Amino acid sequence: MGTTAKTQFQKPLLAVLKGETQTPPPIWLMRQAGRYLPEFRAVRKEIGGFLDLCYNPKKACEVTLQPIERYGFDAAILFSDILVVPHGLGQHVEFRTGEGPVLEALKDAEDLAKLDLSQLHEKMAPVYAAVSEIRTALAQTAPKTALIGFAGAPWTLACYMVEGKGSKDYARTKEWAYGQTDLFQKLVDLLVEAIAAYLVRQIDAGAEAVQIFDSWAGVLPEDALKRWSLEPITAIAEKVKAERPETPIIAFPRGAGQLYESFAKIPHIDALGLDTTVPLDWAVEVLQPHVALQGNLDPIRMVVGGAEMDQAIDYILEKTAKGRFIFNLGHGCVPNTPPENVARLVDRIRNFSF
Amino acid sequence: MGTTAKTQFQKPLLAVLKGETQTPPPIWLMRQAGRYLPEFRAVRKEIGGFLDLCYNPKKACEVTLQPIERYGFDAAILFSDILVVPHGLGQHVEFRTGEGPVLEALKDAEDLAKLDLSQLHEKMAPVYAAVSEIRTALAQTAPKTALIGFAGAPWTLACYMVEGKGSKDYARTKEWAYGQTDLFQKLVDLLVEAIAAYLVRQIDAGAEAVQIFDSWAGVLPEDALKRWSLEPITAIAEKVKAERPETPIIAFPRGAGQLYESFAKIPHIDALGLDTTVPLDWAVEVLQPHVALQGNLDPIRMVVGGAEMDQAIDYILEKTAKGRFIFNLGHGCVPNTPPENVARLVDRIRNFSF
Repeated sequence: MGTTAKTQFQKPLLAVLKGETQTPPPIWLMRQAGRYLPEFRAVRKEIGGFLDLCYNPKKACEVTLQPIERYGFDAAILFSDILVVPHGLGQHVEFRTGEGPVLEALKDAEDLAKLDLSQLHEKMAPVYAAVSEIRTALAQTAPKTALIGFAGAPWTLACYMVEGKGSKDYARTKEWAYGQTDLFQKLVDLLVEAIAAYLVRQIDAGAEAVQIFDSWAGVLPEDALKRWSLEPITAIAEKVKAERPETPIIAFPRGAGQLYESFAKIPHIDALGLDTTVPLDWAVEVLQPHVALQGNLDPIRMVVGGAEMDQAIDYILEKTAKGRFIFNLGHGCVPNTPPENVARLVDRIRNFSF
Repeated sequence: MGTTAKTQFQKPLLAVLKGETQTPPPIWLMRQAGRYLPEFRAVRKEIGGFLDLCYNPKKACEVTLQPIERYGFDAAILFSDILVVPHGLGQHVEFRTGEGPVLEALKDAEDLAKLDLSQLHEKMAPVYAAVSEIRTALAQTAPKTALIGFAGAPWTLACYMVEGKGSKDYARTKEWAYGQTDLFQKLVDLLVEAIAAYLVRQIDAGAEAVQIFDSWAGVLPEDALKRWSLEPITAIAEKVKAERPETPIIAFPRGAGQLYESFAKIPHIDALGLDTTVPLDWAVEVLQPHVALQGNLDPIRMVVGGAEMDQAIDYILEKTAKGRFIFNLGHGCVPNTPPENVARLVDRIRNFSF
């Protein structure tokens, strides 16, 4: 069982991203460092605000490594938040307990003109420092675990920047995109530049792969999804690969439905994160010939655990693991996930009969 | 232009649902009777609560007809709410201004046992009376406009019944579905029976077609969507057609993605409502051979209006109108829709060069 011996790569995640099939597949979970872990809650309590934790390299490193120590995941993902980029561009961002993120919403061209790309790297310095610290620590304690950096995609960031908070339908953002298209394009172009530069710096600091999260791609109709999700992600991937051609890129256009196919054909995308709803027979047939697949267990199945979770894991492995595959959730771990269910999940995947 | 002369049906909507292609296609809009209309807000203000309006046959008839008078839509849809069914089963339901619906959430088997199917028709009597009143009024004032009845699908109703309110991810409902599957099946079975009976009574009162709204189908992974959305909707359609074989059924499994294909193959479904995200080339190729299509303009495009809306309308018509098609939105009209944009939309569709 397992093909690790045959690979030229020490790290199973990188092997899959670079073109190999691994059995068992590498495993990591979105939001694997988070509130479901008591050791995370302890650090969170000790530090004041959420952004304070993101900008504290030592503590960000500590919480990033917690799930690696517990579960031996094949990837560590930088502990941070997609909203550090709007913050780095000068927008006011805060995280209120029980309420989620609150931004000073962009209202017009004047607000847009205030965004300042020139400060980004200075403001993101603690994030880059965290990446370096995590990479160094992994080399010592978990040499087979790869480090993933990440950023939010332009559409998803724009949603938060224009609404000022979460929304059910992102109607204000759509009104900008549909009604003031040139202005919205300026915002998206600025974000493409910022995100690409931010990812390159994360790579230089030690990230071995990067993931682009387009969490709200699924609220857009076909033509708008192409313009505001597919095209900007394509542009970011091109820019990053032009500068750092060896670093794999994972895109996660959540809710893209049938249009996942267009993402699979972006030349510089190496893997696609599948949300919980993507049918796997379709994904294996249409997407896997072009990219590695990553996903797509429903996080609520990890809350329930037991035989129900086991069956869902087995189904995913049976469908996808003949090709390039990375086991993950279709959405982030939720706070009421019992930590023992995560251990059971890892154990089940690593002992599965392929 | 137009093939109405050739049809055996007086009502274009019924012609399409029964197998004909109409150019221009029939038009109606989800939530066409609603807060964007000043005449609706006037009635709403005069009546106390939202449910009071749903249970007032005279006033429900009045608001149902308002958009028909203004725009000459090809269908009127009963003014009501999907949550009248849980209410009719004995669950406490209220609508709080600015907060949406609030239900006394089902917590366990005991709460489930309290639901009482025997009172449903008595409690729904004012709804059935509204249907009759609307049908009579249409015969006099808009003889080409068909009357659509509707109900929420079991999964979507269960989401509200278990959560007690709207939710981002319906995690508690999923925990029931995944973790207490037999108990959840009982709830769904009860809802299948209630909804089928409720739709049959609407038909007997005068509804000429019925639509089943599964607004939250899109939060379910493939296997769960089949079990909790596809199977119950299939069962409802079978029951309704067994009793009233001539009445067409429209299903709207919002967010079903690639699995729309399975809904298109349900023998008793005559049309599928497409959410805003469904790519139309795919829908025409994969779905339209089996069913009439209905949808899928993004309601925010109707807020923006102008050339942007026109282009989006033209795109939909060019893609879909060669086959059986009903123009509609991909989601309900939003309250800030300018009424003049609705007039522009109807005008554009009726004067489109096919």
